[in-house]
Amino acid sequence: MPKGFRNKLHEVIYEADTPEGKLFDVILLILILISIITVMLESVASIKLVYGKELDIIEWIITGFFTIEYIARIISVKKPANYIFSFYGIIDLLSMLPKYIDVLFPGLAFLISIRSLRLLRVFRILKLGHFIGASNQLYTALKKSRIKITVFLFGVIIICVIMGTLMYIIEGPESGFKNIPISIYWTIVTLTTVGFGDITPVTPLGQFLSALIMIMGYGIIAVPTGLVTAQFMQDNKTPENTQVCAVCNADHHRDKAKYCYNCGANLHQ
Amino acid sequence: MPKGFRNKLHEVIYEADTPEGKLFDVILLILILISIITVMLESVASIKLVYGKELDIIEWIITGFFTIEYIARIISVKKPANYIFSFYGIIDLLSMLPKYIDVLFPGLAFLISIRSLRLLRVFRILKLGHFIGASNQLYTALKKSRIKITVFLFGVIIICVIMGTLMYIIEGPESGFKNIPISIYWTIVTLTTVGFGDITPVTPLGQFLSALIMIMGYGIIAVPTGLVTAQFMQDNKTPENTQVCAVCNADHHRDKAKYCYNCGANLHQ
Amino acid sequence: MPKGFRNKLHEVIYEADTPEGKLFDVILLILILISIITVMLESVASIKLVYGKELDIIEWIITGFFTIEYIARIISVKKPANYIFSFYGIIDLLSMLPKYIDVLFPGLAFLISIRSLRLLRVFRILKLGHFIGASNQLYTALKKSRIKITVFLFGVIIICVIMGTLMYIIEGPESGFKNIPISIYWTIVTLTTVGFGDITPVTPLGQFLSALIMIMGYGIIAVPTGLVTAQFMQDNKTPENTQVCAVCNADHHRDKAKYCYNCGANLHQ
Amino acid sequence: MPKGFRNKLHEVIYEADTPEGKLFDVILLILILISIITVMLESVASIKLVYGKELDIIEWIITGFFTIEYIARIISVKKPANYIFSFYGIIDLLSMLPKYIDVLFPGLAFLISIRSLRLLRVFRILKLGHFIGASNQLYTALKKSRIKITVFLFGVIIICVIMGTLMYIIEGPESGFKNIPISIYWTIVTLTTVGFGDITPVTPLGQFLSALIMIMGYGIIAVPTGLVTAQFMQDNKTPENTQVCAVCNADHHRDKAKYCYNCGANLHQ
Repeated sequence: MPKGFRNKLHEVIYEADTPEGKLFDVILLILILISIITVMLESVASIKLVYGKELDIIEWIITGFFTIEYIARIISVKKPANYIFSFYGIIDLLSMLPKYIDVLFPGLAFLISIRSLRLLRVFRILKLGHFIGASNQLYTALKKSRIKITVFLFGVIIICVIMGTLMYIIEGPESGFKNIPISIYWTIVTLTTVGFGDITPVTPLGQFLSALIMIMGYGIIAVPTGLVTAQFMQDNKTPENTQVCAVCNADHHRDKAKYCYNCGANLHQ
Repeated sequence: MPKGFRNKLHEVIYEADTPEGKLFDVILLILILISIITVMLESVASIKLVYGKELDIIEWIITGFFTIEYIARIISVKKPANYIFSFYGIIDLLSMLPKYIDVLFPGLAFLISIRSLRLLRVFRILKLGHFIGASNQLYTALKKSRIKITVFLFGVIIICVIMGTLMYIIEGPESGFKNIPISIYWTIVTLTTVGFGDITPVTPLGQFLSALIMIMGYGIIAVPTGLVTAQFMQDNKTPENTQVCAVCNADHHRDKAKYCYNCGANLHQ
Repeated sequence: MPKGFRNKLHEVIYEADTPEGKLFDVILLILILISIITVMLESVASIKLVYGKELDIIEWIITGFFTIEYIARIISVKKPANYIFSFYGIIDLLSMLPKYIDVLFPGLAFLISIRSLRLLRVFRILKLGHFIGASNQLYTALKKSRIKITVFLFGVIIICVIMGTLMYIIEGPESGFKNIPISIYWTIVTLTTVGFGDITPVTPLGQFLSALIMIMGYGIIAVPTGLVTAQFMQDNKTPENTQVCAVCNADHHRDKAKYCYNCGANLHQ
Repeated sequence: MPKGFRNKLHEVIYEADTPEGKLFDVILLILILISIITVMLESVASIKLVYGKELDIIEWIITGFFTIEYIARIISVKKPANYIFSFYGIIDLLSMLPKYIDVLFPGLAFLISIRSLRLLRVFRILKLGHFIGASNQLYTALKKSRIKITVFLFGVIIICVIMGTLMYIIEGPESGFKNIPISIYWTIVTLTTVGFGDITPVTPLGQFLSALIMIMGYGIIAVPTGLVTAQFMQDNKTPENTQVCAVCNADHHRDKAKYCYNCGANLHQ
C-alpha cells in the first residue's frame, strides 16, 4: 500500500481538520445513529414481527460499513495494535462481531445491541470538531472537582454498606431484605431518593431507620452540588491583575491593563 | 371596516399599555382559567354524571367567546396569516375547534382538553404586563445557561441510551426490560431519581448497574444546579462599565474607571 | 381580677424575658410533645388495644392543662378577641375541643390528632427564646428569595397542568390517567422526582412524554437551588466601604475603616 | 510486659507515621473488607448452601485476627478502659463477639453482620494517613454548616409531623395511612422525593395535599444546597490578613494592607 494513500486515509479517519475528515465524522455519526435506532426497533417484538426482514438488511449494510471502517482504521494507523487494543478499538470490534457470530450461533443475536456503545464516539467527534464550546467548560469543572466528588461518593458507599447491613439485621431475611447485598442495593435506591418501592420496610424500627436514610440522602445531596457550583464560580471569575499603580497606588486592575484606571499612569514603567 | 376601529381593536387585544388592553388581558386570563377548570371537572366521570349538562353549557359559552376573540385577532392584525400560523394562533384555533367538531364526530370530545395549552398565554400576559419583575431575571439566567444545560442534557441522554441498552442485555427480554426503548425509559426514570418501580432489575448484575446509575444521577444533578447558580451569582456581581474609550475603542472598563486601561486616555472627556 | 395579676400572667404566658416566662415555654413545649406522642400512639391499633385506658387518662390530663392555658391566655390579654380569632388561638381551641366533643359524639375522636398543629408553637417559642440564632439567617434568606421562588413554583404548576392534560389525552381515560386532575397529580409526582409508581404510562408516546417531564424536573430543580444559594452568598459577603482615600485614591476599604489601608491617611477628613 | 514493647505496639497500632504503622493500617483495612464481603456472601442463601463451610472457616480466621488485634489494643494502651468503652472499642468487641456466642446460641449468627460497622475505621485510617486531602475540606465545610443544616432538618421534621397528621385525618385509618407514625413516615418518603409508592393517597383532598408536600420538598431542597455551597465558596475566598495592629490591636485587616484601618499605624514596622 502506498504511503501517501495511508497518510490520506489517516487524515480522513482520525482527524477533522480537512473537509473530508469532517464529512467522514458526520457520516459515521449518522450511521451510528441509524444502527442504534435499527437495533432499538428490532428489540421491540411487535415491530420485529412486521419489519424483521427490512431491519435485518439495514443491519447487514451497516455492519458492512463498520467492517470496512474497522479495516481502514487498522491499515491507516502506523501501529495497528495501538488501535485494536484501545477502548474504542474494542468497542468497534464488538459492534460488528455479533452480527457475524449470529450466523453460526443464532442465540447470541441480542448482543448486537452492544453497538450502542459506539455512541460514545459522539464525545470524541464533538471534541475534535469543537462545535460545542460549552462542553469543554463543563468537562473542566467536573474534572477539577473529580477528586472531591470521588471522596464524597466513597463516603456515600460506606454509609450505604453500614445502613444496608443494619436494615438487614432489623428487617430480617424473611422480608424483602433477604440478604445483605439486596439490603445495600435498597439503601442506595433510598439514599439517592430514587425509591422504586419494590422493597419497602415493614417493621416500625426499619421504617424509622429508612426515614433517617432518606433525610440523610436529602441533606447530603448538597455536597456534590456545592462542590461543582464552587468550581463553576471560580472558573467564571474575571481575572484581576496583582499590579499596583506606582503613581496613585490603586489596585484591582483588569487583567492585561496597560494604564491605571484611576490616574492614567503607565503601569508598565 | 374603518381603519381607526381596527387600530383600536389591535391596541386592546395585542397591547397592554391602555386600561382597556389590561382589562382585556385580565378577562381573557379568567376565561382561560374557567375553561380549564370546566374541562378538568368534565373529565372526572362522577362529576360529569351529575353536572354534565351545566358544564357543557359553560363550555359552549366560553367556546363562543374564544371564537369571537379568534375572529377579532384575525381582523385586527395587518397580516392575518402571521397570527393564524403562529404558535399561539394554532393553539387558539385548536382550543375551540374540538367543541364544534364534537357535534359532527362525538368521539373526539376529549380533545377539548387541549385547551389547557392556552394557559401558556399566561407567560405572554405576564411579560406584557410586567407585573412580576422577578420572572424576567429568572428567564434571563435560564436563557444564558441554556447552551450549557443543553449540552448537559445531551450527555445525560447518551448515558441513558448506553446504560439502557446494557440493562436490556443484562436483564434480558423476559424481564420488565422487554425491549431497548423500554430499558432507556427505565434508565431515565432511574437516573433522574424519579424511580416509579413499575420495572425493577432482578438479577444481581442488573441491580449493581442500577446502583451505579442511581449514584451517577445523584451526583451529576450538581451540574445543572452549579450552572444556574453560577449564572445567578454573575448577574448579581458589581457591573462593569459600559464606557468605550474615545481614543482606542477599548471596552469592558472597571466600574468607576476614570482612565482607559489600554491607552491611558481620560474617559470622562 | 386584680390588674397586677393579669399583667404578671401576661408576662409569664406571652413573654420569655423572665425566668417564669422561659419556664412556662419549656413546660408548654414538653406538654405539646407528650400530647402529640400520646395521640400518635393511640392511632396505632395494637397499642390502643393494650394501653388505650392509660393513653386516654394522659390525654384527659393534658386536655385539662390546655384548657386552663386557653382560659389563662384569654383573661391575661387586654383584647381577648385578638387572641381567640388569631391563627394560634384557633389552633389552641381545636387542640382541646375534640376531646370534649368526643364524650357527646364518639365518632369524632380521631380529630384530636389535629392537636399536632400545636407543634407550630415551637417556631414561636424558638423565635422568642432566640436559642437558635441560625434559624433567623435561614428565615431571612428564604424570605428574600420568596418572590422568585413563588414565580418559579407558579411556572412549575402551569407546566404540570399542561403536561398533565397532554398525558390524559395520550394515555386516555381507560388507563391510570382516568381524569385530568389525576393526570396533573401524576405530573407533579413525576416532575418533582418523587415517582410513586401507583400510576405509570403504558403507551410508548406516554412514556416518551414522561421521560421529557422527568428530565425537565431533573433540570429545573437547579432554579430554586440557584436562587437560594445566590441569596445566601450575598448575605455572607463582607461589607466593603464605598469610600476612596483622598490622598492615594485607594478604594475597597473595609466597612467602618477610619484610616486608609494603603497610605494611612484619615478617611474621615 | 516490657515497656519498650508496649510503646512499639502502640506506635504500630494507633499511629501511622512509621512504615510498620502504615502497613498495619493497610492490612487491617484489607481484613475488614474481606470480613465484610464474607458476611455479605454468607447472607445470600444460595451461596451459603454451596460455600457455607469455606465462608465459615474464613470467618473464624478473621475473628481470630480481630481477637488478637483487640487484645493488642488493650495491652498497648496506658488506660485500657479508655479504649474499651470508646466508640471504636465497643464496635471492635461487637465485631468478634457474635462468632463466639454463635457456638453457644446458634440463633444469633446473623448478628455477625454488625461487623460492617468496622468499616467506619476507614474514616479514621484515612484521617491518620492524610492520603486523601480533599476529605478534610469536605469535612470542614460540612462541620461549619452543621448548625444551620440541623435547624433546617428540625424544621423539616416538624413539617413532616404536621403534614403526616393531616394526611392521616384526610385519608383515614382504613387506607394505607393506618396510623399517625405511618403517615409521618409516608410524609418523609414524599417530602424527600423518594416516593416508594407502597402507600399512596386515594382521596382527591389527600392527593392535593400530597402535591403540596412534593412541591414543598422540591423547593426546600434548595436550602441545604445553598448553605453548603455558600460555605464552600467562603472557604475559597481570598483570605484576610492575620496581622494585628501593634498600636490599637485591630485585626481582620485587608490582605496586603500597609496601614491599620482603625488607627492609621504602619503595620509593617
